Amino acid sequence: MKILNVSLADRSYPIFIGKNILTQSNLLDESIKNKEVCVVTNTTVAALYLDKLLECLSNDYAVETVVLPDGEQYKNLDVLNQVFDTLLEAQFSRQVTLIALGGGVIGDMTGFAAACYQRGVPFIQIPTTLLAQVDSSVGGKTAVNHTLGKNMIGAFYQPQCVIADTDTLLTLDDRQLSSGLAEVIKYGLINDAEFFNWLEDNMPSLMARDGDLLAEAIERSCKDKADIVAEDEREQGVRALLNLGHTFGHAIETGMGYGLVLHGEAVAIGMLMAADLSHRMGWLTLSELERVKNILLLAGLPISVPDAMTVDKFMSLMAVDKKVKNGQIRLVLLKGIGQAILSDDYDKKQLYQTLESFNAG
Amino acid sequence: MKILNVSLADRSYPIFIGKNILTQSNLLDESIKNKEVCVVTNTTVAALYLDKLLECLSNDYAVETVVLPDGEQYKNLDVLNQVFDTLLEAQFSRQVTLIALGGGVIGDMTGFAAACYQRGVPFIQIPTTLLAQVDSSVGGKTAVNHTLGKNMIGAFYQPQCVIADTDTLLTLDDRQLSSGLAEVIKYGLINDAEFFNWLEDNMPSLMARDGDLLAEAIERSCKDKADIVAEDEREQGVRALLNLGHTFGHAIETGMGYGLVLHGEAVAIGMLMAADLSHRMGWLTLSELERVKNILLLAGLPISVPDAMTVDKFMSLMAVDKKVKNGQIRLVLLKGIGQAILSDDYDKKQLYQTLESFNAG
Repeated sequence: MKILNVSLADRSYPIFIGKNILTQSNLLDESIKNKEVCVVTNTTVAALYLDKLLECLSNDYAVETVVLPDGEQYKNLDVLNQVFDTLLEAQFSRQVTLIALGGGVIGDMTGFAAACYQRGVPFIQIPTTLLAQVDSSVGGKTAVNHTLGKNMIGAFYQPQCVIADTDTLLTLDDRQLSSGLAEVIKYGLINDAEFFNWLEDNMPSLMARDGDLLAEAIERSCKDKADIVAEDEREQGVRALLNLGHTFGHAIETGMGYGLVLHGEAVAIGMLMAADLSHRMGWLTLSELERVKNILLLAGLPISVPDAMTVDKFMSLMAVDKKVKNGQIRLVLLKGIGQAILSDDYDKKQLYQTLESFNAG
Repeated sequence: MKILNVSLADRSYPIFIGKNILTQSNLLDESIKNKEVCVVTNTTVAALYLDKLLECLSNDYAVETVVLPDGEQYKNLDVLNQVFDTLLEAQFSRQVTLIALGGGVIGDMTGFAAACYQRGVPFIQIPTTLLAQVDSSVGGKTAVNHTLGKNMIGAFYQPQCVIADTDTLLTLDDRQLSSGLAEVIKYGLINDAEFFNWLEDNMPSLMARDGDLLAEAIERSCKDKADIVAEDEREQGVRALLNLGHTFGHAIETGMGYGLVLHGEAVAIGMLMAADLSHRMGWLTLSELERVKNILLLAGLPISVPDAMTVDKFMSLMAVDKKVKNGQIRLVLLKGIGQAILSDDYDKKQLYQTLESFNAG
């Protein structure tokens, strides 16, 4: 088992990465400060791992379970309220520990429920998808969606620990695996060119679910992310780079209706759009742009925008995205592979050209 | 104008108290960092003060207004979503400033909306009731209610500043004024016996809305509260004393249905119940208990429990209240006037006797 630390003063916490560690009860026990526990999961994950988890929770705990419907379209305030219903019906106190067992949606919702219940209770992340293990479970961003924008209602709230069991990736469907790889590729593009090269070499083995290589990719991704989060927890500066591909991507997710396009798929398309704009600005060479496109294809990710997304729809949805400052959309762009920068200094015409070229096909 | 400071490291902020300061645009301008502003108020307060406030906001600002229905029964997630709707329809960014113009319900909801919108945006409190000026606008507790418990969904989130305009108290109805005085009396009972004496002497003039005396009572209350909050922002210890009367009071509010009994009225009854239990434990003399009852009567507050509240209802609702630790209900009790302590060391029989005596009478 590997242990990474996210350094955030009194909010620091460990990330445990390894095979079959979901049921290591000592990891859980060390993070549960009280006898009240509420596991939040979804129908898909519950069928696979809920019993396993419940078995390893001590009989001393009073345990409640909330099983939510599976999918991004359920990540909203209404469904979140089901968690509060369960906590209050069980009369759980301010000392209850919430456990998020599932992918990014479950992690985001459980974290936000923990941030809000009685103004804040502890929680543990047990991410069961690659995307959640390398991205959403690390860094304390929690949220639900609003019909007018993704992740618009949320909190910065850190877990007690993250338990990333790589065995859970064996039950992931192919689309989910690819979706996670999009975020892995993102770390290479942002500030880790060496990792990007490694990913180009090893993508076929990662797609074949080589356990050791997946563990290596997860560890490196978590480390890259943890370093950035430690530097800028509340996204006042450098952390915004982690949104590479997300301003375009969120517009696609919101515009198409939540759940239709997976988050990682939308981010993949968004990263290619950011690379395309960076190329138009003369920042990225054509061959670098091709490398971005190729690695996405190797990872089984989409590289074209759904037909329903018009240029107008993009512009309107991107304007509401939280990277906007004083009306000018700030975008994460690339000065090279491994050199992302946040910029509102691009030419608007070129942004339109990128949007039009993607809508054209 | 008086200025008090709430000392909370990088979350410190000033409380301005004075006559007709609602329209001092410099107070607002200094706290608004960006050109986006959203005023949240309710139908009652909007009719009285909204135009006045809007007039003094610079034309440079993009201003939206949300007018919510008036009353504790609307302090829930559904109504809160109206604020998010407005913010997102206006495409307001992470730099928007929210302004809470109203009583405790508006302050709590606006603060919580600010805590959650895009994971946190700045907000300003303009409390227009005595209760909000002396209590809910100070200290950063924000929340909405759940049908199973009051203030169960919320955040600790501090405003940029509090602007307490004492002129707004002239339009308060008598019940609202009395409700605010309950929280004022609370500070005396907790740790300020001298203030309690002063209140006994001056209650008739406060009820007659003597402006100078009201300002003095507000300043003293805010100072007492700010000192406690500065010591214990997240209620790990001494801050819990501010809940004197609230465990009983929340049970009454939730049990009767939100909005029927005003918060301060419920707290008044709750404080008397806490005093009654303290007397049964031998901590409070009969004459001290009588002083508590008398000052509540002088302030026009109720001292008996509504008929619908049974002992069972109290016990069940108090168990869910957030002062519960490991199943034992912790209560704020009195060792004397001005000497509150948090205790789970009381005799359960005596708690039942208190509940029964209040239900009987």
